[in-house]
Amino acid sequence: MKVDSKNVVKVLGICGSLRKDSKNMQALKYMASAAPGVGMDMEIADLTEVPFFNADIEHEKPPAVEKLLQQMIDADAFVLATPEYNYSYTPALKNALDWGSRIKDNRGFKQKVASMISVGGGHKGGRSQYHLRQVSVFLDLFVLNKPEVMLSGFDGITFNEEGRLVDKASMDRMVQQLEALKELSIKLNPKQVSDGSNP
Amino acid sequence: MKVDSKNVVKVLGICGSLRKDSKNMQALKYMASAAPGVGMDMEIADLTEVPFFNADIEHEKPPAVEKLLQQMIDADAFVLATPEYNYSYTPALKNALDWGSRIKDNRGFKQKVASMISVGGGHKGGRSQYHLRQVSVFLDLFVLNKPEVMLSGFDGITFNEEGRLVDKASMDRMVQQLEALKELSIKLNPKQVSDGSNP
Amino acid sequence: MKVDSKNVVKVLGICGSLRKDSKNMQALKYMASAAPGVGMDMEIADLTEVPFFNADIEHEKPPAVEKLLQQMIDADAFVLATPEYNYSYTPALKNALDWGSRIKDNRGFKQKVASMISVGGGHKGGRSQYHLRQVSVFLDLFVLNKPEVMLSGFDGITFNEEGRLVDKASMDRMVQQLEALKELSIKLNPKQVSDGSNP
Amino acid sequence: MKVDSKNVVKVLGICGSLRKDSKNMQALKYMASAAPGVGMDMEIADLTEVPFFNADIEHEKPPAVEKLLQQMIDADAFVLATPEYNYSYTPALKNALDWGSRIKDNRGFKQKVASMISVGGGHKGGRSQYHLRQVSVFLDLFVLNKPEVMLSGFDGITFNEEGRLVDKASMDRMVQQLEALKELSIKLNPKQVSDGSNP
Repeated sequence: MKVDSKNVVKVLGICGSLRKDSKNMQALKYMASAAPGVGMDMEIADLTEVPFFNADIEHEKPPAVEKLLQQMIDADAFVLATPEYNYSYTPALKNALDWGSRIKDNRGFKQKVASMISVGGGHKGGRSQYHLRQVSVFLDLFVLNKPEVMLSGFDGITFNEEGRLVDKASMDRMVQQLEALKELSIKLNPKQVSDGSNP
Repeated sequence: MKVDSKNVVKVLGICGSLRKDSKNMQALKYMASAAPGVGMDMEIADLTEVPFFNADIEHEKPPAVEKLLQQMIDADAFVLATPEYNYSYTPALKNALDWGSRIKDNRGFKQKVASMISVGGGHKGGRSQYHLRQVSVFLDLFVLNKPEVMLSGFDGITFNEEGRLVDKASMDRMVQQLEALKELSIKLNPKQVSDGSNP
Repeated sequence: MKVDSKNVVKVLGICGSLRKDSKNMQALKYMASAAPGVGMDMEIADLTEVPFFNADIEHEKPPAVEKLLQQMIDADAFVLATPEYNYSYTPALKNALDWGSRIKDNRGFKQKVASMISVGGGHKGGRSQYHLRQVSVFLDLFVLNKPEVMLSGFDGITFNEEGRLVDKASMDRMVQQLEALKELSIKLNPKQVSDGSNP
Repeated sequence: MKVDSKNVVKVLGICGSLRKDSKNMQALKYMASAAPGVGMDMEIADLTEVPFFNADIEHEKPPAVEKLLQQMIDADAFVLATPEYNYSYTPALKNALDWGSRIKDNRGFKQKVASMISVGGGHKGGRSQYHLRQVSVFLDLFVLNKPEVMLSGFDGITFNEEGRLVDKASMDRMVQQLEALKELSIKLNPKQVSDGSNP
């Protein structure tokens, strides 16, 4: 398929860790770098200035929230990089989704698609992914089933001693996930491959 | 949309209760009766003679299993009627899915779609649905997000004193779920609406 | 049982909503007011100034975090008031637990007990409770099984038109939960009922 | 502590696999063999003749069910060996619990304790354990938090080439789990360590 502006799938990556050298963020950045190669355009959200959602003050949105919500509206698809804290997802990631869920008519998520990656210890972050899948039901976000991406952060193979992502097989798997995400996005929202004559 | 043999979506209904007067089965049968009206053709599986899956003896499949597996292969979509036993799904329903998961190349479920209904008490069977959604990830079955159908079995409104499904709003909601299921099925597997010239 | 300083069970209440008129907070405050009557002493944590956990900066704890962690260390038991946002718990609540999980030797939670309440719509917040129970496994916190407290925020009975908790049966149930929590706490950590002669 | 008939904790082991050479059953049998050494007496339930629960015919219990229910009533504690089928527990295991949940006054499970082990692939059976923990809430069964036992069935270390459990560290961990289970059982139901003068 020819990749041009008309059928590029726009992806928003959201990472649940706020750490500077987060391995989850590293993996997500790798995907962003690989996205153009599969006909996708991927931005990564900045959650550092996004406060806890509080309905009492949601009418006074700080600029970081305004920007996040616009990115969600503009996105066709999402990649959620979800570290596992205490057998579940992180507050920063869920908080971004909670903010997004308040967009009028659910234009942030409705009938869009998402995939998940995680880097972690024991279950490689997996326990966080299954909780997020339940969240996605309410958001009306279709989450890709396969390939699941769960990477070991501590095996010395996926990330090297300096903590840099180096495993080729893991990178390939993330690219395959992007490809599957693109395919699902196009199937569910076929206007994305329009020739420009449709809105 | 004109309903003809070329674009009828074939649905297999599977009910997790083995009771004769199961309210979940009643609701499922209502959906089967309404299916032709929305361009779907729905059969209901018979689990009464399906034994527990056991890999030691899976090569000797009883006829009830052979029939179930063929129905799964033939189906485009699934409706799972899932009573809640002890805050989760029932063994009979999961067992049917476990059998189906052993079909070669996952032809029973791969990239197909499913919806869920439940009738129950407190959470109206909801706790069973979220567990089944996790099962569906491995099966590579896309589960509809909305509308969720969870009916009260004991409010005296949805089912009357004789235990018969009588609530029009609930029935309408089930029909809406069928329509959404059909739409999702066609989007994900567009060959179903071919005019016959495509494979 | 005589209630004196030697066997009063210290409870920390944590509410997942940051709203001023949160119904979950109201219910939690009711429990705090009822706690002395059942031999418990209950404080409620203030999460308004607790930032997102970030391992990069966790050595520079703001005073609100220092206070929270000390309250956790001092507590024998926890009551978690957990609103449901998008079919799961809120970031503010999980974030408090994540901070607490970093206390040395897990002195915040290890082998302590907790109960949960929630006020909500459809499932009355229930979906958030089951996710938090999984979190509690890693925290090594024993969560009471029964009585579960899930209150309707919108039935006009539990909370009145002005949004005030008024239902006597709900209040009684919360007191019963406190009693069960106390009993479990004492069973698991029997030093709490010592007459002073035991360590 | 002196181990004698008065304070032996009676454990019922239930395995979710019906396979003859089930690795989960092997691990469970290892625990049964180690139980006397830690002051526990462990039987293993036989599920091969236990039919699917069906409320229509539950008054006609086959002998295998009668025996299982009596074992549950007699047990102080449970060890559930739970293979993971399609990202959740097996029907055979849940079915045993469903039958047990129908015992009058919940004498099978009420306020008793349980631990879980699993042998599996990717998550080593873990996904099944978290679903069973939710089931246990309704059963009012307290599930041990730690140590969690999840063993790899395919690493060539835990089980050898012939499929026999050979890893000493895994066996030690299972013994530690039994010890923790015993301690929890005694704390929650202290009559078990009576000197005979109490009922």
